[in-house]
Amino acid sequence: MVIQSTSPIIVVANRLPFIVGKDENGKPVRKQCAGGLVTAVAPVVVETNGLWIGWPGVFLEDNLEYIPESSPNDKSPTAGLKSEQVIPVNLPRDQFNAYYNGCCNATFWPLFHSMPDRALFQADKWEAYLSVNEEFAKLTMLAVRRVIAKEPGVVPLVWIHDYHLMCTANFIRSACEAEGITIKLAFFLHIPFPSWDIMRLFPWDDELLQNILGCDSIGFHLEDYCLNFIDCCHRRLGCRIDRQRMLIEHNSRTVSVHPLPISIPYERFESLSKTAEAVVKNNPEEQILLCVDRLDYTKGLVHRIKAFERLLEKHPEHIEKVVLLQVAVPSRTDVKEYQELKEELDMEIGKLNGRFSTPNWSPIRYIYGCVSQEQLAAFYRDSSVALVTPLRDGMNLVAKEFVACQTKEPGVLVLSPFAGAGTAMLEALQVNPYETELFSEVIHRAITMPKDERELRMKLLRKREKERDVNFWLESFLKSVNCYTKTSDSENRLMPLREEDFSTFLENYVTESTKLALLLDYDGTLAPIAPHPDLAVLPPETKKVLQRLANMPDVNIAIISGRSLENVKQMVGIEGITYAGNHGFQIRHPDGTMFIHPVPQEYLENLTKLRGSLKAICEHGAWLEDKGTGITFHFRAVDDALVPDIMSKARQCFKDAGIAVYPSHAAFEARPPVTWNKGRAAIYILRTLFGVDWCDRISTIFAGDDNTDEDAMKTLQGMAITFRVTADKNVRTLANYRLPSTDAVFTMLKWIERRLGARTVVENPRKRANSITTSAGGSPNRLSPRSNSPHENLVSSIKMSDVDFNQMLAKVPLSNGVALTTINKVLEGQHPN
Amino acid sequence: MVIQSTSPIIVVANRLPFIVGKDENGKPVRKQCAGGLVTAVAPVVVETNGLWIGWPGVFLEDNLEYIPESSPNDKSPTAGLKSEQVIPVNLPRDQFNAYYNGCCNATFWPLFHSMPDRALFQADKWEAYLSVNEEFAKLTMLAVRRVIAKEPGVVPLVWIHDYHLMCTANFIRSACEAEGITIKLAFFLHIPFPSWDIMRLFPWDDELLQNILGCDSIGFHLEDYCLNFIDCCHRRLGCRIDRQRMLIEHNSRTVSVHPLPISIPYERFESLSKTAEAVVKNNPEEQILLCVDRLDYTKGLVHRIKAFERLLEKHPEHIEKVVLLQVAVPSRTDVKEYQELKEELDMEIGKLNGRFSTPNWSPIRYIYGCVSQEQLAAFYRDSSVALVTPLRDGMNLVAKEFVACQTKEPGVLVLSPFAGAGTAMLEALQVNPYETELFSEVIHRAITMPKDERELRMKLLRKREKERDVNFWLESFLKSVNCYTKTSDSENRLMPLREEDFSTFLENYVTESTKLALLLDYDGTLAPIAPHPDLAVLPPETKKVLQRLANMPDVNIAIISGRSLENVKQMVGIEGITYAGNHGFQIRHPDGTMFIHPVPQEYLENLTKLRGSLKAICEHGAWLEDKGTGITFHFRAVDDALVPDIMSKARQCFKDAGIAVYPSHAAFEARPPVTWNKGRAAIYILRTLFGVDWCDRISTIFAGDDNTDEDAMKTLQGMAITFRVTADKNVRTLANYRLPSTDAVFTMLKWIERRLGARTVVENPRKRANSITTSAGGSPNRLSPRSNSPHENLVSSIKMSDVDFNQMLAKVPLSNGVALTTINKVLEGQHPN
Repeated sequence: MVIQSTSPIIVVANRLPFIVGKDENGKPVRKQCAGGLVTAVAPVVVETNGLWIGWPGVFLEDNLEYIPESSPNDKSPTAGLKSEQVIPVNLPRDQFNAYYNGCCNATFWPLFHSMPDRALFQADKWEAYLSVNEEFAKLTMLAVRRVIAKEPGVVPLVWIHDYHLMCTANFIRSACEAEGITIKLAFFLHIPFPSWDIMRLFPWDDELLQNILGCDSIGFHLEDYCLNFIDCCHRRLGCRIDRQRMLIEHNSRTVSVHPLPISIPYERFESLSKTAEAVVKNNPEEQILLCVDRLDYTKGLVHRIKAFERLLEKHPEHIEKVVLLQVAVPSRTDVKEYQELKEELDMEIGKLNGRFSTPNWSPIRYIYGCVSQEQLAAFYRDSSVALVTPLRDGMNLVAKEFVACQTKEPGVLVLSPFAGAGTAMLEALQVNPYETELFSEVIHRAITMPKDERELRMKLLRKREKERDVNFWLESFLKSVNCYTKTSDSENRLMPLREEDFSTFLENYVTESTKLALLLDYDGTLAPIAPHPDLAVLPPETKKVLQRLANMPDVNIAIISGRSLENVKQMVGIEGITYAGNHGFQIRHPDGTMFIHPVPQEYLENLTKLRGSLKAICEHGAWLEDKGTGITFHFRAVDDALVPDIMSKARQCFKDAGIAVYPSHAAFEARPPVTWNKGRAAIYILRTLFGVDWCDRISTIFAGDDNTDEDAMKTLQGMAITFRVTADKNVRTLANYRLPSTDAVFTMLKWIERRLGARTVVENPRKRANSITTSAGGSPNRLSPRSNSPHENLVSSIKMSDVDFNQMLAKVPLSNGVALTTINKVLEGQHPN
Repeated sequence: MVIQSTSPIIVVANRLPFIVGKDENGKPVRKQCAGGLVTAVAPVVVETNGLWIGWPGVFLEDNLEYIPESSPNDKSPTAGLKSEQVIPVNLPRDQFNAYYNGCCNATFWPLFHSMPDRALFQADKWEAYLSVNEEFAKLTMLAVRRVIAKEPGVVPLVWIHDYHLMCTANFIRSACEAEGITIKLAFFLHIPFPSWDIMRLFPWDDELLQNILGCDSIGFHLEDYCLNFIDCCHRRLGCRIDRQRMLIEHNSRTVSVHPLPISIPYERFESLSKTAEAVVKNNPEEQILLCVDRLDYTKGLVHRIKAFERLLEKHPEHIEKVVLLQVAVPSRTDVKEYQELKEELDMEIGKLNGRFSTPNWSPIRYIYGCVSQEQLAAFYRDSSVALVTPLRDGMNLVAKEFVACQTKEPGVLVLSPFAGAGTAMLEALQVNPYETELFSEVIHRAITMPKDERELRMKLLRKREKERDVNFWLESFLKSVNCYTKTSDSENRLMPLREEDFSTFLENYVTESTKLALLLDYDGTLAPIAPHPDLAVLPPETKKVLQRLANMPDVNIAIISGRSLENVKQMVGIEGITYAGNHGFQIRHPDGTMFIHPVPQEYLENLTKLRGSLKAICEHGAWLEDKGTGITFHFRAVDDALVPDIMSKARQCFKDAGIAVYPSHAAFEARPPVTWNKGRAAIYILRTLFGVDWCDRISTIFAGDDNTDEDAMKTLQGMAITFRVTADKNVRTLANYRLPSTDAVFTMLKWIERRLGARTVVENPRKRANSITTSAGGSPNRLSPRSNSPHENLVSSIKMSDVDFNQMLAKVPLSNGVALTTINKVLEGQHPN
């Protein structure tokens, strides 16, 4: 049975569904792999005229770049897959190794199996991972274009698989957006997804999670794994989530998460078991305990040998009556850790056999190597007990294959609860592989289980696995991406961001009696980005709410912008608030007091030179914004084709003038070479308005949308709640929360207005939190509620006029090269910078 | 300041607040330990006339059994602690090692720090742990009695500390109950509590959690740890919980959980820092980066050295300007893992020093050993940066001590988010110790941070730590156990078990259209346990609801009891239901059909003999219950003092008769030596009533209260929802849920009645679950919702008369020794048992 899909499927997986090898004449041929995934998915790819992108099993330097057609007598599920439907990812050996061994298997494998001690975190391996993922993405785009060229208007379904390719989605999404192509993007993880406690150890967790969120639909085996992922997005990225419906909001998009327990081609195994030759036994009564595992540290092979040893000690009646058949499939044999595991296993088996063997019998039969599917089916059928006892396992298909092949005398499945399969296969005997004593008792119970109980349990197990085979899984997946029957996507949407949502973010931080400082960027935060700064107008509703907030007694607003002070003041046009222009180099308080950050003379001279040379290249829509101590060269309006040229010319101007380039939104900026930025300016404003102990008496909210705002988020970290306004796919931010748009900022302002508008005339002392913890680990509010300050009700804003400018300035050490004596004096005796 | 407690405090900790050593004359003397815990808690123990139980630092074989008084010039916080207030726990070296190194440090330490790979699980070490915990409990009882003798009527507060003593509470609780003593029992864990994903790996998690729940009040550092613990109790023990109020119900008791972040004696550190001598620097400008850690693999020492190396590579301007001062305190030096860590650290430091040292300067100054508090305070004060960067840490007090000592030029705290301290100390610079690159950048930022930012951050950090010092912690703890001011305990109670609660347990399993089999034990499940079985009457309300359920069309009830069939039928007195007497050896269906399990002739002969000999010792209230194929010898009514004697006499009778003893509730039972029990009987009943595919078409609920019911829970595991009725402190059960009393069973019956009573006349097909997962991992319902069976609406109960008895019987192989030819015949060709 081939499951139908309404979209052509493009599968992106680490490996192709076959390996490319050479025949005896050195000609490339396909060598088959027989995994359940291939069996189920390959026919759908064939059927829908889809494609498969993956590593062909050879390296770039092997010069085996073309994919052979399948041989005429190929009867495998991939036989129908024409070579044009296959896109091989040819990589140099070194790069592949860094990606595959260095990152996938040395980092993600142990980390995702909750064995953090075994995980290595290496920046260069992570870089290799990203670059290989990008390579896969590029070839996926090739596939997408090919599918669309064949059938214009079709919406291909790109299905990315497993922990090898968690960072391809955003590359693909960006490329599609750029080319105006519509696709569906889905991801499925074949291993466990760990809890936040473990995931947060990964140093690039932010980037990783955002890349996974690049998909529209994300699948894991178990509900537990889904909830772990949702929790990570909530706690690490500050995403809005709906745990019940398993939805995550990120960059104005809603991503849906689905539990999709994978399974096996049940019927194939069942029929194999009916024809396979009988396993030869020492005597007809001999009971086989079967163990089939890839030789991996997650599989608990040694733990099981120890339990078997204990069984023979405690129940010598089984001696010469049972045999443990261990099939260990070689894996990652070039990795030291795996070699050591092999040595340990060899030794333990040898020791046990040495201890218990009799002239006619050895307790363990140990096959280190691969066995054919037919052979395996026979083992499954003729064994009395299967011991599937991993220490941690995403799903484990051996448990299911065993059950499918139980077509004769019913055997007993012993299953670890730490395998994903353990969640559904409740009729198996469950055992904790770490507890040798009880483990051995469970094996004993399995060996001696009465036939009626064996029959009953096996019948129930078989029924479920038959219904929920790999086709059921595929069908469920297609339903989850609405490719099975055409249904509406609209159900899977989170509610739009509402005022109420800010209660979750700010409830404990902004109370009715809070004194609030509201620090806001202008472009992209209050006003939507426009082609020319003059067109970036403040929406009237936003202006109104800002005006009303500005009139409230305990609210102080400051607008901190990259624009010139005069310009930003004019654009906002509200009286009674603070304006900071030119990234905070000029600050003007409501009472008219001014602060201008000093700038080195040499820089000002260079700036004049730069101004001249940039003016000369203001063509094709490029233009210059002059801010006094800074310049912004805008090329947002320049035709795409001309941008690279104009950028390189501008860079040259900066270089010639000896001034560093600060790239901004389609613009280059020149800024004074001093350690002053929006962060320092924010602190300066807060100190000026509220005194040096500002943090004790006010709550501070900052919102901004670009990299210059990150300076403020960094400086204010731990002392304010910060929002990054972004719809970018891959923004790493220090902000506490993300907001999708300027609309969301407007919504927040409305929430604040309502919240503070409820305050009574006589101020209530703030409620103290009941708990003595300062931060609710589980709550989305990462900042602690402010404690009562003794001065709270006494001190109102200290106005700028109260402050000695020199003194304020003195507290701000500037970076080297600033030749202002007044400043240098004060810096004496301090730590060298 | 000594915090006041309204109760005398008995501290139970692994160690005494001082070590007992010998002076130069071989006389025992106290040697001081200066931890924050001792400083805060010892004065309260002194003040309240409490006691301290702990290991004195010497072994039983050291013959140092008495505790010396403190010396006259002792000025430590323990000086006031008289030797009579101290109870040393003297243990043989071997036992102590198995407990301390084998279990505490080799199992709990890595497991609780979420490093499961390093954890060893060994049954003998766990046994040692339990026995040492029991020893501590016995000595605690000594202390409790001493306190009560001094001040009759007082309610002592027993405060157990840390992961060494997690299994003392239930020993103490039982002893107090037996002696009629009222105490308060509290526990505090000084390390992290891991998530369920990690905790469940511990093979004896059930026992461990129940022992911790023996306390009334349980404290952890963080809310995150509290929620982890609550989740474990919910998922592992099936406890009712209230996440919001952090309450757990267990054995009819409500246990409260509290986040209590520990801290330091702030003022002591602050004042030490004011007087301590200055640290000698190579030059006055030199900046010290300070690292103070116990040499442990959780502390991330090597990760930090690597980040420092990267710093010097990328920012050579710091060469000769900074020095990293590593104080590594020796720890567990006899453990191989720790020796290896030491070697690695030595090597890394040597390598780095070799690479970067100049004639006048070494980058790392490395002190392996202890330093005095004064010396430490000076280090803290004179360092520019403290690097507190563990891989995982319950709290970390070094971060707090550094802050307290920052009384001169403000320095910068760099803190790992994986330390508990990171949750509250938000103004520190946070860094992931695994990411070398960013780690080095954060160190750079710390070294070069402008003074105003340093001042601001340090001021906020100091303010919080000053307010929330160790006394604040102690005060919060005393409040949490209502020993600070006298308040009512009643707030901290979960609502009593209500009908609604069963919705959480059974909602998905019992729907309006479910066909239900209800298998119930009688004594202790339906009827409360009574001194004599004749007095264990079914409460009239329970009888009524059972009667109404029995009249419903799709409900089948079976009572499975240890009583004789006639007796249980008479006690329940309801028509139309199935009765199974004598643990299922006799079964009677509503239509009068009977099943009697065959019993070997030899056993019946021995039983006659036993009956005679037991009758002869029926004295002092002991009496015999005869059940035909079984006998129960009851001694519930015998005076406590006589019980041991009568038990040993009875055991002898059983032995003489050649019949095995089955201990039951204050009774010994004789049962036929065949593999037949309540579990086999349950399956037999279900097959008889519903056919071999019963599991496809009905939902089954089983409830029972004692060990004979565990047989049914074991057999039905995965195929029914089972309840264990128990108020025992330490019952290991295979049941899905626990119920505190027969009242709770009654409530469940009412819930079922209401649920099924809502069904309409025309049966609706069962709703299919939306998700394709068969079990909701996160939900309390561990069983999957039943899928639609094709026969569901076609087949009603198959009555007993339809079934061929011999055939049913044949499917049940009996254990060896049963000489019934009819059975043996059918067994031929099966696996040998």
